[in-house]
Amino acid sequence: MDGSAGEIQTAIDILKQRFGDRLTTNQTIRDRHGTDESYHAPKAPDAVVFPQTTDDVIEIVNICREHRTPIIPFGVGTSLEGHIAALQGGVCIDLGQMNAVLSVNAEDLDVTVEPGVTRKQLNEYLRDTGLFFPIDPGADATIGGMTATRASGTNAVRYGTMRENVLSLGVVTPDGRYIRTGKRARKSSAGYDLTRLFVGSEGTLGVIVDVTLRLYGIPESISSAVCTYPTVDDAVNTTILTIQSGVPIARIELVDEVQMRALNNFSDLGYAERPTLFFEFHGTEAGVAEQIESVRAISDEFGGADFSWASRPEERSKLWQARHDAHYANMQLRPGAKAWPTDVCVPISRLAECIAETRKDIEEAGLLAPIVGHVGDGNFHVDMVLDPDDAEEVGRAVALNNRLVARALEMDGTCTGEHGVGHGKVGKMRAEHGDALDVMRAIKLSIDPLNLMNPGKVVPL
Amino acid sequence: MDGSAGEIQTAIDILKQRFGDRLTTNQTIRDRHGTDESYHAPKAPDAVVFPQTTDDVIEIVNICREHRTPIIPFGVGTSLEGHIAALQGGVCIDLGQMNAVLSVNAEDLDVTVEPGVTRKQLNEYLRDTGLFFPIDPGADATIGGMTATRASGTNAVRYGTMRENVLSLGVVTPDGRYIRTGKRARKSSAGYDLTRLFVGSEGTLGVIVDVTLRLYGIPESISSAVCTYPTVDDAVNTTILTIQSGVPIARIELVDEVQMRALNNFSDLGYAERPTLFFEFHGTEAGVAEQIESVRAISDEFGGADFSWASRPEERSKLWQARHDAHYANMQLRPGAKAWPTDVCVPISRLAECIAETRKDIEEAGLLAPIVGHVGDGNFHVDMVLDPDDAEEVGRAVALNNRLVARALEMDGTCTGEHGVGHGKVGKMRAEHGDALDVMRAIKLSIDPLNLMNPGKVVPL
Repeated sequence: MDGSAGEIQTAIDILKQRFGDRLTTNQTIRDRHGTDESYHAPKAPDAVVFPQTTDDVIEIVNICREHRTPIIPFGVGTSLEGHIAALQGGVCIDLGQMNAVLSVNAEDLDVTVEPGVTRKQLNEYLRDTGLFFPIDPGADATIGGMTATRASGTNAVRYGTMRENVLSLGVVTPDGRYIRTGKRARKSSAGYDLTRLFVGSEGTLGVIVDVTLRLYGIPESISSAVCTYPTVDDAVNTTILTIQSGVPIARIELVDEVQMRALNNFSDLGYAERPTLFFEFHGTEAGVAEQIESVRAISDEFGGADFSWASRPEERSKLWQARHDAHYANMQLRPGAKAWPTDVCVPISRLAECIAETRKDIEEAGLLAPIVGHVGDGNFHVDMVLDPDDAEEVGRAVALNNRLVARALEMDGTCTGEHGVGHGKVGKMRAEHGDALDVMRAIKLSIDPLNLMNPGKVVPL
Repeated sequence: MDGSAGEIQTAIDILKQRFGDRLTTNQTIRDRHGTDESYHAPKAPDAVVFPQTTDDVIEIVNICREHRTPIIPFGVGTSLEGHIAALQGGVCIDLGQMNAVLSVNAEDLDVTVEPGVTRKQLNEYLRDTGLFFPIDPGADATIGGMTATRASGTNAVRYGTMRENVLSLGVVTPDGRYIRTGKRARKSSAGYDLTRLFVGSEGTLGVIVDVTLRLYGIPESISSAVCTYPTVDDAVNTTILTIQSGVPIARIELVDEVQMRALNNFSDLGYAERPTLFFEFHGTEAGVAEQIESVRAISDEFGGADFSWASRPEERSKLWQARHDAHYANMQLRPGAKAWPTDVCVPISRLAECIAETRKDIEEAGLLAPIVGHVGDGNFHVDMVLDPDDAEEVGRAVALNNRLVARALEMDGTCTGEHGVGHGKVGKMRAEHGDALDVMRAIKLSIDPLNLMNPGKVVPL
């Protein structure tokens, strides 16, 4: 325990009385709740509590606040920048038991869910409605967690990120009140945009307890393909021209040759180990045919090989599951190693240059670091595969990450396109935001004056 | 002057010394700057100052703050809820001389402009690039004003509102610092979404001094059409089914028979005075043809007449200019009258019912109040044409507006889809937001602790 350990213990004692078996101080469970899928040092909370209702959450927040106890909201633990590490101890609120789909409004193309619903669970639930929720950060994350980190993923180039797809939120604020940040209307000019403020706030402003999302009709036609290129530059330039041409492509993903080797090993794919784009096209039959024709013409200009098609749903699923497994595949490239996934996002006109310089940098640093990217958005990931016990190698990775972020900022890009800040990138916030960080700080303290909500994340205080 | 008149006068004296002819206390100019296109009582500021640079704005903000003088940012004065009325006196900052296009990044599909650039000026500037900026609130508003009110308009159903189309902002904060709310990357997870916080903040959190916007390629094919329906219900149901079918329509606008009469009178159109939809389709040749086929089939189900096409650019311009002139046309329906435009937005499943009940309500209230709507978004306008000197009639209008807002809220809609809050709807904010309004209030005071930025708007203090 940290800070006023006595106060935290008092809060836990009171919570234990109230929640019984739904509060645990079991070390294994605590450890799991302080450990995400990032490279960064985990830190277990002092206790984990499992609310089942919004009223439970209000009660937990009130007890913790009265006893100055940090609160860390938790979805399923797939974050990538140490978002859930209990840096100052405190109580983890595991929202996994709040996992009901509350209402589907098919006519309005929206759905309201509890935060513990995962994206796969949601799409399974929606299967008979002809609707789907497109945001897919790879892992089967919870909707609450995806909202809190402003997640995106492969479909963002067509459908936007959580920023565009959360219609409104129910939030328990640090003072223990339930607020709703907006209505179900598709647009509003009625006051400050609290929805977008809480999307991406990483649990530092309150606990998300329900989420209303936009839904989309399942496209009449879906086609996926894979195509290899002579160089990464060619693949990136194919992407840039596709976006600039206004083709409404649903997915366009870069996998470099190192990453392709890892995917082949992990998923037994048998693809050529060359720079590759994974495509997906959504639309009417005729619309998809038209999109494919446009993209093929562009691809040909940059030496793209023949498109290898995955037409049947199960083939498509295999292809995208392989793509989503990149991080897990990389860890198997070097047994005993640990992967450090980092991401940046730049204006698309700078993307080819940014990736080329980064690859040169990786080579010079002598690191194993496959690159994958949601390149249609200008967003790419570098997954550094390290021996965590080799201080010298870790030092080279730290330096590489620093240069990567500095390069992205210099190109008017951002230090993270979709992974978020957590505590892994909290030190980059001043460089990215300058004085705007003081405005974030003022907002944080106006809503959470005691700094109890996920302290140490997003905004350095 | 209001409040501490002496302090305001001191600020004006210092500003006069610094800005010379670029500060005026001329009554005519002051009156114009306190008067928008709304029904609500205007209130002139004590002075109007015309900055030419961000440094000018910083200086003005610092001088006003030191002397506790309210600041009202001003674009071109086309707001519709009294946004620019100097309720507590103070200094109006007219940003009209900051009207340069700063940089066009055609490859990234974005542009950065000063706040005084108007939407028509911007599109004129972009003409040779093959790109355009789609948001059109009707009036030739400034980009700064459109950002501040979270404007939208006819194209929002396809392209989104200012919420979706502002990439980042430069803002002078009440403490006199210039901040940038984001980078030019298409997405980011790096901290609180200050861009979306300032979009729609109506000058209550700072002065917007530059705006980076998304641009779009001019579609290969554009077709506009007009179609009449037996009843408003039929027109609205055509809209609902079009949206639910996922047709990517660019514009779908309802004009009721009373509004059509006003448009015919004002613009000499000669259209049938029946419930009407104005359509626009954007896409490839084949895509537009496909969209039209889908919408025609839906329209036929609801008794739509033949589509009347406007194919040539000048015909299209005439059609949409007529639509945009609705508010001006209505004022001519009843000479000497004043129009009170109000708007709400509801989930589309409730739209037909909401409009039907509103029309019944208008009839029972005995008011002249045409309805137009961006119905694809669930958003519609009631333009009440009144004798402002007839207290009894004004009372009926107040009651109608109250019932309209209450009905929208009851349907999980919002008290304003695009006009904003100003001081006209500040009294509706508690009903809409409940305790969330206290979060807005905390944010306002954390950024503007002296409540000098456009006081009396958005958040009741």
